[in-house]
Amino acid sequence: MIMVGSDRAKKTANLRQQLGKIRVMDFSPRKRRAASAAKSAGVDGMLVTHLPDVRYLSGFTGSNAALVLAGGRAVLFTDGRYTGQAKAEAAGTRVVIATKPAVVAACEWMESAEVRRCGFDAAHTTVAGLETMRKAVSGKVRRGMFVAVGSLVARMREVKDRGEIAKMRAAARTGCELFEGMLTYLEAGQTEAEVASTLEYAARLAGAEGMSFDTIVASGERSALPHGRATSAKLPKRGFVTLDFGVILDGYCSDMTRTVHMGKAMPGERDVYDSVLEAQEAAVAAVAPGVTAGEVDEAARSVLRRVKLDKYFCHSTGHGVGLEIHEGPRLAAKQTQILEQGMVITIEPGVYMPGRFGLRIEDMVLVTDKGGEVLTPSVKAWIEL
Amino acid sequence: MIMVGSDRAKKTANLRQQLGKIRVMDFSPRKRRAASAAKSAGVDGMLVTHLPDVRYLSGFTGSNAALVLAGGRAVLFTDGRYTGQAKAEAAGTRVVIATKPAVVAACEWMESAEVRRCGFDAAHTTVAGLETMRKAVSGKVRRGMFVAVGSLVARMREVKDRGEIAKMRAAARTGCELFEGMLTYLEAGQTEAEVASTLEYAARLAGAEGMSFDTIVASGERSALPHGRATSAKLPKRGFVTLDFGVILDGYCSDMTRTVHMGKAMPGERDVYDSVLEAQEAAVAAVAPGVTAGEVDEAARSVLRRVKLDKYFCHSTGHGVGLEIHEGPRLAAKQTQILEQGMVITIEPGVYMPGRFGLRIEDMVLVTDKGGEVLTPSVKAWIEL
Repeated sequence: MIMVGSDRAKKTANLRQQLGKIRVMDFSPRKRRAASAAKSAGVDGMLVTHLPDVRYLSGFTGSNAALVLAGGRAVLFTDGRYTGQAKAEAAGTRVVIATKPAVVAACEWMESAEVRRCGFDAAHTTVAGLETMRKAVSGKVRRGMFVAVGSLVARMREVKDRGEIAKMRAAARTGCELFEGMLTYLEAGQTEAEVASTLEYAARLAGAEGMSFDTIVASGERSALPHGRATSAKLPKRGFVTLDFGVILDGYCSDMTRTVHMGKAMPGERDVYDSVLEAQEAAVAAVAPGVTAGEVDEAARSVLRRVKLDKYFCHSTGHGVGLEIHEGPRLAAKQTQILEQGMVITIEPGVYMPGRFGLRIEDMVLVTDKGGEVLTPSVKAWIEL
Repeated sequence: MIMVGSDRAKKTANLRQQLGKIRVMDFSPRKRRAASAAKSAGVDGMLVTHLPDVRYLSGFTGSNAALVLAGGRAVLFTDGRYTGQAKAEAAGTRVVIATKPAVVAACEWMESAEVRRCGFDAAHTTVAGLETMRKAVSGKVRRGMFVAVGSLVARMREVKDRGEIAKMRAAARTGCELFEGMLTYLEAGQTEAEVASTLEYAARLAGAEGMSFDTIVASGERSALPHGRATSAKLPKRGFVTLDFGVILDGYCSDMTRTVHMGKAMPGERDVYDSVLEAQEAAVAAVAPGVTAGEVDEAARSVLRRVKLDKYFCHSTGHGVGLEIHEGPRLAAKQTQILEQGMVITIEPGVYMPGRFGLRIEDMVLVTDKGGEVLTPSVKAWIEL
């Protein structure tokens, strides 16, 4: 795989037709909202380098980019590998193919455009990156030039627009179809890795650009590992199998978990399953605009507390999802962030009993004006295969 | 997929047997070397948060970790999802399951251990992360506590030890086998996405934990895109197909590129192919300990310059590879870093003629005492399918 490099100026060419189906989309409203958020934060320019943010504001999907918003303009800096792709994808944004690092070219441009205070996202800028930015501008403007303004674009991205919701619905639907296909495939004796690769192959054939994250298949005693990657362990004749996976469609991630049982339940298993399911459904029912993330977490946690299983629920209840698999809001104990219509979140309580078994059930949920709409309606009832 | 969260203390359990085959490996020499590098940099403690660095020094592969080296001790901080996994994987390192963010717990521990100057890697620490570190310690020690010391561990990782070389050989070999399998599979009319998913499925069945990066399949005119992801475009009856892919085996990435031709060559194609191959082989031949990265780049670039194709070679010649797909050294024009025995690098010149065609040929090369050893010996001669 190639890295950015070399110092050659590149000829441009109309590669639009070679880039697959490029959707014509107007990014101006997003860029205007970001510029307005920057203005409210007291800066007259903003440097965006986190790639999902760049994609959100411009459409560009390349691996090297710096986007500047300043004075009503948007300029995207990238390198010669992306000459054609940038012009096609970021059609509404001026593109500069830089021979210097993109962020250096962006800062030099800002100085020449007389930007005085440039906002940046401290959560996605490294200490070394900030030093590079500072060195790119002359000493006379450096002082006070770069201002941490919070994750303004990531915050915008938490609330999805109609087009995004349509894409997330499609990704979630593909996830459900894959899970339902797996129900006819799973058999005792298959390795977890075999199951994961089959699921991922089916996902690609179903049009997924990739998986949202490394597929989790945790079976038998390994189901007690919240983050059990697929290994060479074999699916048991009797025991749980947890599948946690997601597909990327048109840039947007799906995320769902189901736990099924191979063979007949052993004593205690069914009760724990039913409690996790009750907790999951209680949290889904608690989702509504105006509710805090902590209240949704507590809805799940209190069900498990009642049956003394809360000590085995060792993670948060969920997270936002979109262009990235983990976005805001974070649904955890005491989180005060308020859910808003248009957010897409996961609800995924689990119980993990070391040395015995574990299970997790997860849906993607859209916050609507009325409450929460489950985007992953695959069966959650007890399944014995 | 679950995020870190919740505030529950977790019981530990011996999950070693559930974690698949854990290799017993002694990380003490690496920890000692890192501690010694920290000492040379003038600090009495080091905070390591970049996950490949944490893995390199402790064996831990979880997604949340902060490793402290101080006073001859190593302490790994993570969260309750990884209780069993951390104890099993990082068997030689003290593990603390933190209820606070791992980096906060690590900084508090350092203060209590009276670390006065803590080195950190500015290239892998965000501005917000540094602020979190500062706030985690009391005002009286904060001043002068955190010192950017460069990427000390990443620098160590550039030179591979025997165990790592064995793993990289295995990963490279699997890559070659996959490519050779694809030669019998490729047919005009298949979509690039189909080719990519088949290759990735085969990789998983061959034992890969995952792919080093999203598989690149660029066919026909799309071969002129250096970073063409696999799309719904169909392999042509006559034209190039570039495959750029890598597998992860035991944590280590492979990386290779081959370009084959569907049907008979069209005028000019064969000459360009032969020039790229000559450039690639010239660069491989230039690899030796003591040579600079820039000299290897120039070996490839000068061949293409002679035939006036250098303007179409719009990226660097290669990069280091290991636990990460892109590591140091960077093989680009004018790079003065000196190659050392034990480095594993890619050599991957390419030519991209917009609107016409493009191609790239890439090997992984181990720097030996004598020169360079190609780890990916799959055929590079002209292939017509």
